Amino acid sequence: MNNILILGAGRSANACIQYVLKNAKTYNWSVVVADSDLETAVKKVGKHTNGRAVWLDATKAEDRQDLISRADVVISLLPPHMHVDVAYDCIRLKKHLITASYVSKDIYKLSDEFRNSELIFMGEMGLDPGIDHMSAMQKIDEIKARGGKITAFSSNAGGLVALENLTKNPWRYKFTWNPRNVVKAGQGTAQYLENGKFKYIPYNRLFKEYKLIEIPGYDEPFEVYANRDSLLYREAYGLDDIPTLSRGTIRYRGFCDAWNALVQIGLTDGTYPIMDSDKISYHELMEAFLSKPGRAGASVKERVAEMLGESEFSPVMKKLDWLGLFSKKKINTPNATPALILEELLLEKWKLGSKDKDVILMQHEFEYELGGKKFQLTSTMKLMGVDSDDTAMARLVGLPLGIFAKFLMTNKIVTAGVNIPVLKEIYDPVLEELKAYGVVFQEQERVLND
Amino acid sequence: MNNILILGAGRSANACIQYVLKNAKTYNWSVVVADSDLETAVKKVGKHTNGRAVWLDATKAEDRQDLISRADVVISLLPPHMHVDVAYDCIRLKKHLITASYVSKDIYKLSDEFRNSELIFMGEMGLDPGIDHMSAMQKIDEIKARGGKITAFSSNAGGLVALENLTKNPWRYKFTWNPRNVVKAGQGTAQYLENGKFKYIPYNRLFKEYKLIEIPGYDEPFEVYANRDSLLYREAYGLDDIPTLSRGTIRYRGFCDAWNALVQIGLTDGTYPIMDSDKISYHELMEAFLSKPGRAGASVKERVAEMLGESEFSPVMKKLDWLGLFSKKKINTPNATPALILEELLLEKWKLGSKDKDVILMQHEFEYELGGKKFQLTSTMKLMGVDSDDTAMARLVGLPLGIFAKFLMTNKIVTAGVNIPVLKEIYDPVLEELKAYGVVFQEQERVLND
Repeated sequence: MNNILILGAGRSANACIQYVLKNAKTYNWSVVVADSDLETAVKKVGKHTNGRAVWLDATKAEDRQDLISRADVVISLLPPHMHVDVAYDCIRLKKHLITASYVSKDIYKLSDEFRNSELIFMGEMGLDPGIDHMSAMQKIDEIKARGGKITAFSSNAGGLVALENLTKNPWRYKFTWNPRNVVKAGQGTAQYLENGKFKYIPYNRLFKEYKLIEIPGYDEPFEVYANRDSLLYREAYGLDDIPTLSRGTIRYRGFCDAWNALVQIGLTDGTYPIMDSDKISYHELMEAFLSKPGRAGASVKERVAEMLGESEFSPVMKKLDWLGLFSKKKINTPNATPALILEELLLEKWKLGSKDKDVILMQHEFEYELGGKKFQLTSTMKLMGVDSDDTAMARLVGLPLGIFAKFLMTNKIVTAGVNIPVLKEIYDPVLEELKAYGVVFQEQERVLND
Repeated sequence: MNNILILGAGRSANACIQYVLKNAKTYNWSVVVADSDLETAVKKVGKHTNGRAVWLDATKAEDRQDLISRADVVISLLPPHMHVDVAYDCIRLKKHLITASYVSKDIYKLSDEFRNSELIFMGEMGLDPGIDHMSAMQKIDEIKARGGKITAFSSNAGGLVALENLTKNPWRYKFTWNPRNVVKAGQGTAQYLENGKFKYIPYNRLFKEYKLIEIPGYDEPFEVYANRDSLLYREAYGLDDIPTLSRGTIRYRGFCDAWNALVQIGLTDGTYPIMDSDKISYHELMEAFLSKPGRAGASVKERVAEMLGESEFSPVMKKLDWLGLFSKKKINTPNATPALILEELLLEKWKLGSKDKDVILMQHEFEYELGGKKFQLTSTMKLMGVDSDDTAMARLVGLPLGIFAKFLMTNKIVTAGVNIPVLKEIYDPVLEELKAYGVVFQEQERVLND
């Protein structure tokens, strides 16, 4: 195999493209990078002799299939909803396919076809999902191999920004990944397991009922809100009988209470349009969410504070104010949903500065029994980015894709079918190579019942 | 025209069937009452010489069309989702059709076909929707005819139970209509107009931000929570420029705070199943919704109270307790959504006793300007049922259907097409006849700026 096709050359593709190009010379690969913005693709490929940038509108099936037909392995960084089409192409044209997106039910339905054609579809091969699976499974398999019985597993991760870049931002948060997903985070009901019992946190309480965790190297604790999907991982991780299992998202202290205020106001709702939203200001939008008259002469800000049970100058209110939610500035977009109005406002306020360094935090906590003793093991990874072009986020999403592609191209991976990286033959070599890029988990262990 | 077909003979059809049968002799009609439960249909028709009960599975298109083909006018009390099929049948077979359900977009799409065939589809011809439209439009048209300019309109209605039947029920509420709709009430976002501005109340605040209204004849005020759809009525009522417009649901004092507690807990969510819900008790279900450990030794009830910001013996907590939410009784249904579990519990607790009398309350409040003065006009209707078989609810839903059918059969209605009862030629005669059944609006008017 000599030909790799990378679909998508946006910011999230940087590290993946660079890794693949770097290896292309050694292995004599030909690398095609396709994007709907040719200039971006050209810039990313640079003067690399083994690389070629091409223009592609990936929704045009013929053009897409033409490129795929000339590759051996396809890495897709296209939007997740396009992966089914690409998967069908790959089956028909007998190509391997790698993505960093969640594997959908529609993709799982293609398992037999991939397997029968001796093709590999590797999904969830990024950071989260991706490195979370690999690092957790390595630990889980290791504890099991030692004869340990895992009784609790909690896995938390977050994409943040170095504290020194946040001194003027009271939210202490900026976008380092898909803003829409941040605005919609947690909608639905979070489900997890605690002492053998199912637990449910509805969205209206999710950001109020966060927990605190400690991360080595930081003086203050972090907030963690529960992810909606913890239970899905019981089977995938071979933890069917585990009594305690949860997954969560890590934020700096102070974030969740303020985000909860946005939820309570109604600003994260993407299900209905605000009529003529481009005719009103943010201040008027906030007023539209107030049904109670408030005490005589109260300002909109005071009434919002009262509705939230906050004082006017509380940390939460300061964060809302800083976003410009009480400003007389007009909203840009007509008939936008509250969620879209919020997203467009946050895009401006939470934009990553060119010199900002992002930080990825990931922490697994296990409790297990071994030899009559009960242990608690914490495994923590922290990685910082360089600037807004070379983020830790893009590296940790892109490197696993590239590394896996390399093993695939060099015939080191053999398990055909639709998979996620939970098998030892996969996670061991990928994690080993990732170490060189700073993906190192620090462990702390203590005996719970000595 | 001599033949009427009534589809559906359930409890909600009682008053409609009796009204039509009573008029059948005078007008020499033949009345067919069809239901999937033949015994019920037979019982409702009784020994009436002009009536005939037949068995019908309305999902069977051929059987349904066979019955429709022999009628001149069809009254459908089938579940709302079936009305599109029945409407297609009626167009093909050239029959008029009357329902008490909201007119869906799919039905409105058939407007031309009904009109071109000179057929009448009259929807929303019940209580709410139905009598609300007619009584409001009569007042609106009357004020306009006098030269008045309407500046505010608020319309509220509720199906309740006589207070003397509620002494042992701390919620002071029982089901007199579709329980599922009560459990799902308000999901989405309520929208209304206030002083020319759009207002939005998200579901998570809807039952917290109720308003109070006075109803003549009652010492205590009533609670009103906003309906989601107020804005739809601007155009239908010819009130396009009105600055203040709202619709709401009336409950006795104390209901909304307690229902808000169910919303906050997560019990009204119908979007996901509780795993193995038949293996746990209501007490365990409540525990599943608690993510915070609470103070040491706290009971589940105390923890729920703490989560809600209530004291353990507050009126809200008393209502939750009375429902049996903290009992060790097992839940019946496996893998049920929280909303279904709640509905099944309420069906038991909020069942109408055979001798209970229900009460329908409807109140319109107008503000209008006329001759330099500003007036406030309140128009209130109250009707009590007799017992659980002869409810005010079934009467007020069924009588408009029957009365309109009579006018249609006797050629007094001429406007073909898909309509709701907002035209004078319709509301005047229907409201006039409804008076004899106790549908009388009491008016109170005062000058606001004397």
